[in-house]
Amino acid sequence: MRSAVTSRTVWTNHRFTAAQAERLRAATSAELVFRPGGGAAPELREADVAFGQPPLADVLASERVRWVQLSSAGYGSYDQPEARRVFRERGAVLTKSSFVYASPCAEHVLAFMLSWARRLPWALRAQWGERSWPQGELRQHAVLLEGQRVVLVGMGSIGARLAELLRPFTPHLIGVRRRPRGDEGIPTLAFEDPALTGALGNADHVVNLLPGTGATQHFFDAARLGLLLPGAIFYNVGRGSTVDQTALAALLTEGRLQAALLDVTDPEPLPPEHPLWRAPNCFITPHAAGGHYNEGDRLVDHFIANLRRFERSEAVLDRAF
Amino acid sequence: MRSAVTSRTVWTNHRFTAAQAERLRAATSAELVFRPGGGAAPELREADVAFGQPPLADVLASERVRWVQLSSAGYGSYDQPEARRVFRERGAVLTKSSFVYASPCAEHVLAFMLSWARRLPWALRAQWGERSWPQGELRQHAVLLEGQRVVLVGMGSIGARLAELLRPFTPHLIGVRRRPRGDEGIPTLAFEDPALTGALGNADHVVNLLPGTGATQHFFDAARLGLLLPGAIFYNVGRGSTVDQTALAALLTEGRLQAALLDVTDPEPLPPEHPLWRAPNCFITPHAAGGHYNEGDRLVDHFIANLRRFERSEAVLDRAF
Repeated sequence: MRSAVTSRTVWTNHRFTAAQAERLRAATSAELVFRPGGGAAPELREADVAFGQPPLADVLASERVRWVQLSSAGYGSYDQPEARRVFRERGAVLTKSSFVYASPCAEHVLAFMLSWARRLPWALRAQWGERSWPQGELRQHAVLLEGQRVVLVGMGSIGARLAELLRPFTPHLIGVRRRPRGDEGIPTLAFEDPALTGALGNADHVVNLLPGTGATQHFFDAARLGLLLPGAIFYNVGRGSTVDQTALAALLTEGRLQAALLDVTDPEPLPPEHPLWRAPNCFITPHAAGGHYNEGDRLVDHFIANLRRFERSEAVLDRAF
Repeated sequence: MRSAVTSRTVWTNHRFTAAQAERLRAATSAELVFRPGGGAAPELREADVAFGQPPLADVLASERVRWVQLSSAGYGSYDQPEARRVFRERGAVLTKSSFVYASPCAEHVLAFMLSWARRLPWALRAQWGERSWPQGELRQHAVLLEGQRVVLVGMGSIGARLAELLRPFTPHLIGVRRRPRGDEGIPTLAFEDPALTGALGNADHVVNLLPGTGATQHFFDAARLGLLLPGAIFYNVGRGSTVDQTALAALLTEGRLQAALLDVTDPEPLPPEHPLWRAPNCFITPHAAGGHYNEGDRLVDHFIANLRRFERSEAVLDRAF
């Protein structure tokens, strides 16, 4: 008997296609309130579940919401003491959609690493320019990823997936996260671990995957960035706010860092006149790492899978708090 | 007692650095004849071992040579019935340097695959142009490599390494080679296997790694290329002679193939006026896939390791015939 289940209400401001909405309807007997793109929502007070990007104030004002799933990997707007306190007191749960973005973001980082190592931007420049054949130059500068030392800062689902993809290349992987849990699959240091200094100072590649929270603001400040080897490459597929961009641009300009490959910046879009666009060996993609043509389907499928777990009173996955 | 060993002569036209020559001297008691860049060489008749790119005619004229190691992955110039016959009759062995090029070539293919999937060329164009922020466009067209179907044509050491790198992405890997040996690690079809048609016609990615031999000339002719899906991507990191480039350019122009990512062409360099440079979604690197900054050291190390095996009467590795 599932009488409690059938009376549930799911509110969502996610923009479903007709086919996606049909899949959701087929998956649950809950009442569904679709408010595509909707912001402040009084009906949220009548909902048990919210999916999409529900405004935090409305969620906190609703006594009834027991579970919120955000349609993003980040949950910065919810990461506040007040939100944590209210969720805890009500026994409510916040989940996110990191699982959906783990593979595309990890693949984006590896695309950055390999395209730089294989000098693909130089080949493109030749093809789009005079169609020259800079064979010797490219071969002499190409680098094998095999055996290199990689530090992954941020060991959530993206870091875990990236470690899987990197394993056939190199055994020299070190993770870093706020609170290591022991299930990272690679040796993982806490933010305050004294070994972090040595790890950053010995890496060929430092990959920043940190979310934008209070605890990560300018995690890569001038002091930490200054630890990197002059031959190191720095990647940011986390959030722009976690890096001191002025310090980063200075290191590149002074040749004290080989390259920076960034998918996120602060602000976004990065204004055309920003010095990072022209810093030596700085390559920027427009916050595209998580994207993929079937992202919408995968987001909805992730929510439906979690909704089934919720309705069977199983623990939902991809939990923030 | 190694008296037979100490009387051996190693002839080489490879260009050693001073440090590399020193490493070779330290590794063997054989007499070493350095002829950097040398072509026709009468002294080859007094040598037991040749390393580098010794001209085939001189090798065949030398009754004494028992082992030739080429400093390249390809051995097209040696792949002739007469050479095979003479080597067989004399009990001589031809090895190559595929092991040195396996990782860089496999990494180059994966760089091609991921940079295309993540739309990096479009991001570069935006950065080098008006510094725009085409976030939506890039995200909507990006593709996950995870779970895609890949056919690797040519399952030598590059194919084997590439299969290792691709395994965390997808289980859908099929190899193709002239004579499958059963040790490829993935299901592998012979050239004449009737299942080849279906494999090529179902693949998201078709990676050509074939060497340039008589048996592979235009392996990818118009008929085989015509089997590929319109959404498929074709890669060539083998040899330009194995592909009918006119047919390939026509498929791209007609939109019957998503993209072609080529590291090798016929001829090389590809003349600036060649239509492939401007074919839609055709991206060309200048035969740079095998290159890496420490290539010279790795070539010499590979030869030294094999020389040690030869001197201990162990089977040499990376054998052609």
